[in-house]
Amino acid sequence: MSVALITGVNGFVGRLLAEKLSANNRHIVGIDIQDKSILPDIQYFKADICDIDIMANIFSKTQPQEIYHLAAVSSPSYFHTEPFNSFRINLMGSISLFEVMKKSTCNSVMLAAGSAKQYQEPAGPGPVTESGILNPSGYYGMSKYAVEMIGRYYVQQHDLDIRFTRSFNHTGPGQANNFVCSDWARQVALIALGMQKPEISVGNIKAAIDFTDVRDVIEAYRLIVQNGKKGEAYNVCNGKGIDLKYILDYLTKKCPSQISICVKQEKFDVTAANAGLIGNYDKLHKETGWNPQIPIEKTLDDIYAWWVNNLR
Amino acid sequence: MSVALITGVNGFVGRLLAEKLSANNRHIVGIDIQDKSILPDIQYFKADICDIDIMANIFSKTQPQEIYHLAAVSSPSYFHTEPFNSFRINLMGSISLFEVMKKSTCNSVMLAAGSAKQYQEPAGPGPVTESGILNPSGYYGMSKYAVEMIGRYYVQQHDLDIRFTRSFNHTGPGQANNFVCSDWARQVALIALGMQKPEISVGNIKAAIDFTDVRDVIEAYRLIVQNGKKGEAYNVCNGKGIDLKYILDYLTKKCPSQISICVKQEKFDVTAANAGLIGNYDKLHKETGWNPQIPIEKTLDDIYAWWVNNLR
Repeated sequence: MSVALITGVNGFVGRLLAEKLSANNRHIVGIDIQDKSILPDIQYFKADICDIDIMANIFSKTQPQEIYHLAAVSSPSYFHTEPFNSFRINLMGSISLFEVMKKSTCNSVMLAAGSAKQYQEPAGPGPVTESGILNPSGYYGMSKYAVEMIGRYYVQQHDLDIRFTRSFNHTGPGQANNFVCSDWARQVALIALGMQKPEISVGNIKAAIDFTDVRDVIEAYRLIVQNGKKGEAYNVCNGKGIDLKYILDYLTKKCPSQISICVKQEKFDVTAANAGLIGNYDKLHKETGWNPQIPIEKTLDDIYAWWVNNLR
Repeated sequence: MSVALITGVNGFVGRLLAEKLSANNRHIVGIDIQDKSILPDIQYFKADICDIDIMANIFSKTQPQEIYHLAAVSSPSYFHTEPFNSFRINLMGSISLFEVMKKSTCNSVMLAAGSAKQYQEPAGPGPVTESGILNPSGYYGMSKYAVEMIGRYYVQQHDLDIRFTRSFNHTGPGQANNFVCSDWARQVALIALGMQKPEISVGNIKAAIDFTDVRDVIEAYRLIVQNGKKGEAYNVCNGKGIDLKYILDYLTKKCPSQISICVKQEKFDVTAANAGLIGNYDKLHKETGWNPQIPIEKTLDDIYAWWVNNLR
């Protein structure tokens, strides 16, 4: 049975990816910073990925053939309040893994999850391809940009098999409510359950966002490791922008009450960047056969249902 | 008396800068990782610059108006063998200082020393200006590139007064002998003193290098803090390439013995990048009046004399 190691396994993407890979006949080794694994049936290590000795020890014990490096600070607000620790986790955590991979004998394939926020904004007309200009304008994008830059050098100098993603916005059931779809779905569910007055507070509702369902995203990650190429970067995206106003209307219609919309300044994320960037996934499709499968309406239905279940 | 804080004060550049600024009526606060200061008359702290709490404490105690951030791993061979610790020092050390500066009430000006290795090579025809493409191809350049990228964001978001340099090769008396001019001068001095057989081992002797005397470099740093602009980057360079063969001939002529040249493969630095890149310092000259003053022959005379004195 092939061994797949997932860093940040307790995260939104990590949990779902672990379940998917487990169903695809992998033995899952999960790493995260919490005491316990959220998933019961995996081999779990509580570890700080920046601790290179501990990570080397885990690699040596478990001999992973596949590494999905998802552990990162992605919340703009945490990055804004704790930039030092955020850069430490995103930068040093990745370099730690590159070093461990370099010294290990596993010949493993690593997927290093990056971000659309690495791209320059505005990207110019039309969806951005992987040859778009990389010039991040926020902390998070900078951290991911630096990781890809340094990771490419490891590929070139040490022949490591690292594959990079530039993942656009993703969402789905179970996402924390500091992300927009989940936040709004939660508020509508609270109203429907009579736990919040019929008023929903929102920030920006004017942008069109390239959202991919997280279940499509994890399938892309699986396929990139299976069929992608060493040293390449792949956009993981939906290829079109979905109006935030459409999402808001779709969600508020789920509740029979008349819901008033309250725009609040503090909901505008001062550190948000590339909100309106749309990606092109031709390269990913061509090399791996991947296409997004789940329409935004199903995604929103499932997020809403998740909150109704979890708030009751 | 104005307070100038120098990180990496025990280094080649730090020591000389401390002496110069001290002569220019600054109280010097020096930070380095060794137990003791090399200079006797400064306020010295042994500290790891990545330790943000200790750094904040030093800032709060000393209230520096000027910060010269020189502490960094610059040796390609150390970077090559210890990339994790090198990136930690160069990246997290700089982010630590940006954070401390952000939270301090000093309104200080920081000079963050960067590198010509941030530029893409080859740079195209003619000396590279500050608008040249930044696309580093080695670890060290990547670390400096990331520091400038992140530092610019601190300037933009938090109005910090950080000024960046892209410093080209510099040399001078007292430089360690893992840098080429110092290495060769030392070997010739050893031969002249009868301590080495009349054979000098060299690596690449074909490149033309943009060398600036370290005493010109520290004057540039002083002037950038005095007359430079917030958020700007400055090439610190000589503006012309000096043939390594010329340097070798100049140094070997100092010794009456016939010296044979032995090219050794291990002396070619596998991690060296941008060896032949020539800089343009028009911007630095225009804004600060700086010009390089010391011709390479005087630099080489002084390096040679330093070794003769120190080897005897």
